[in-house]
Amino acid sequence: MSESRIERVLRNLESQGLEQMLVCDPMSIWYLTGYYTEPYERFLGLLVARDGERRPRTVMFCNRLFPDATGAAQKLVTFDDTDDPVPLVAAELDGSSPLGVDKKLVANWLLPLMDARAASAFRLGSWAVDAARSVKDMREQELMRQASLTNDRAMDWLAAQVREGVTEHQIASGLLGEYRRLGAQGHSFSPIVSFGANAADPHHEPDGTVFHKGDMVLFDVGCKQDAYCSDMTRTFFTAEPTARQLEVYETVRRANEAAEAIVRPGVTFAQIDLTARHIIEDAGFGPYFTHRLGHQIGLEDHEPGDVSSTHDEPVRVGQCFSIEPGIYIPGEVGVRIEDLVIVTEDGCEVLNHYSHEATVLGL
Amino acid sequence: MSESRIERVLRNLESQGLEQMLVCDPMSIWYLTGYYTEPYERFLGLLVARDGERRPRTVMFCNRLFPDATGAAQKLVTFDDTDDPVPLVAAELDGSSPLGVDKKLVANWLLPLMDARAASAFRLGSWAVDAARSVKDMREQELMRQASLTNDRAMDWLAAQVREGVTEHQIASGLLGEYRRLGAQGHSFSPIVSFGANAADPHHEPDGTVFHKGDMVLFDVGCKQDAYCSDMTRTFFTAEPTARQLEVYETVRRANEAAEAIVRPGVTFAQIDLTARHIIEDAGFGPYFTHRLGHQIGLEDHEPGDVSSTHDEPVRVGQCFSIEPGIYIPGEVGVRIEDLVIVTEDGCEVLNHYSHEATVLGL
Repeated sequence: MSESRIERVLRNLESQGLEQMLVCDPMSIWYLTGYYTEPYERFLGLLVARDGERRPRTVMFCNRLFPDATGAAQKLVTFDDTDDPVPLVAAELDGSSPLGVDKKLVANWLLPLMDARAASAFRLGSWAVDAARSVKDMREQELMRQASLTNDRAMDWLAAQVREGVTEHQIASGLLGEYRRLGAQGHSFSPIVSFGANAADPHHEPDGTVFHKGDMVLFDVGCKQDAYCSDMTRTFFTAEPTARQLEVYETVRRANEAAEAIVRPGVTFAQIDLTARHIIEDAGFGPYFTHRLGHQIGLEDHEPGDVSSTHDEPVRVGQCFSIEPGIYIPGEVGVRIEDLVIVTEDGCEVLNHYSHEATVLGL
Repeated sequence: MSESRIERVLRNLESQGLEQMLVCDPMSIWYLTGYYTEPYERFLGLLVARDGERRPRTVMFCNRLFPDATGAAQKLVTFDDTDDPVPLVAAELDGSSPLGVDKKLVANWLLPLMDARAASAFRLGSWAVDAARSVKDMREQELMRQASLTNDRAMDWLAAQVREGVTEHQIASGLLGEYRRLGAQGHSFSPIVSFGANAADPHHEPDGTVFHKGDMVLFDVGCKQDAYCSDMTRTFFTAEPTARQLEVYETVRRANEAAEAIVRPGVTFAQIDLTARHIIEDAGFGPYFTHRLGHQIGLEDHEPGDVSSTHDEPVRVGQCFSIEPGIYIPGEVGVRIEDLVIVTEDGCEVLNHYSHEATVLGL
């Protein structure tokens, strides 16, 4: 259990008029207690509150089928599949004060807790945990750095797999083994391998598409290493690019690098997004950049607080997010170049070191 | 869009006093409309209601980043990451009548819908969809049969991978390729490969454990083929079993076969569970059978309505579920034998044909 993290969450809650919160996101529970399990449809919760003397109070609610959570919180409440966890949770809540509710708590448990009047009101409370998780401490930053180093190395491996006749599936399904050889434990998200016009769909899933020399190749991949995530995209040529392909590529590259160059404390997420967006718009490709510039990342690949044109908060030292401009011209071409950055005192550290240069793979 | 399925859901809702429901489970949306996407943290919903003339009315709510849902419902409402979907949903609801809420709807959307008074009351409505999904029609039964045939074949492949020095990871990571060769698209859940005493943890995840001749080997695996799931467990010997190992194995086998033998319409889920449980208890292993006997299955590996000692509903023709007794003696031995069955007019069809016989693998 991390007392300093729990104290930060409690202070964040208090700034919103809340003195108790039910945390349900398994990664947030891990962040606060070191205990992790994926509950699927079963109930898992961590109550974070103050006791009568204003000290932190924590209670973990676990199905007995989960791994043993002894020691993860001050109190452990367990139950079986045949028990209803709702009255057990209600018994630990202060029914006379409002409850901060995890945004991921599902209706299956929330509605019965409301019916039981387990708190005086139910309000979204996840900001308190998300804000704590958003700012990475030194140890977390080092783990983010290591996960991205592994991802840089994996990109070398991916580029080496491209050969006449290989399918997207084949490359994608070999990546997990490579990550493990490099010291990671798994994927941070399902890898994207796109050949040719498939890359024009930013969420294309690898399929049986066969590679032919000349197809552009996009890899958007990330590993999970010691609980932290990496996430990087590179787009390769496999023959001399046409003038149009190169124009698209270099526009995305300039957008990526200009956005990375302006990151520093006090600059807003929106300014970072718009820096990239304006470059793409000015080059005439505005309608083909169809998503936000990036997302925060840490224990999960997507963490709250996106890098978008409407997110007006300034970035803070220790925040980590992706910068991933793209241009997607349906049926024709798709290019995305993505790095992770950590905000530093006077700028940012780019966690990926894999080149942005337009590269023709020698097959 | 399946009008007959939507009509069944509406009738189920009406039997609970509801005339509108917001379906959010992506597989339920697929079941009702043929449209599938995984929304992650974004909002996806399907409103199922009656219009003024008591005809079915359907509205799909999609982020524009999702695949195009045109035609999946009578009306399509789209929005961007920078839009708030809550007022868009509220505008389509009848604010003067109660809303059936999907049990998987997260607090992030449910609490704002409640704050907006988008309905007169909010009640769990998933039973209406779950009950429809639980009874498989002829086409669904055939797809379940095919997915289990693939799983039978994959078990042959798994058994052939066991050799001195192989790790659990290595076998588990090769399975996806084998499933694809056999015609499936993916895993229905993360495969369990357990060597030796690892099998005594029913939720063991494959790790770097190295196989040595003599270890018992448990495989609990399933594929997803044409949208439907398979799920089967077999436990193998790799040397002549001890008397104790054989006693554990044969007890589990008897429990499995006795439970399968009593399935027929009208028998309750609890009776099926208890049939297996009593055999294990009578053999003296009761404390080591630590979970319910099984779960329903279809579009998802775990579907609502478990095969447990407290589920007193009778089974119905067309329902499909697992029968998976196990004995787990910590640090020593774990055995589970699992098949899928479909309830028929006069019994059940066992979808798995892989032998239950105690088998010593020839390495």
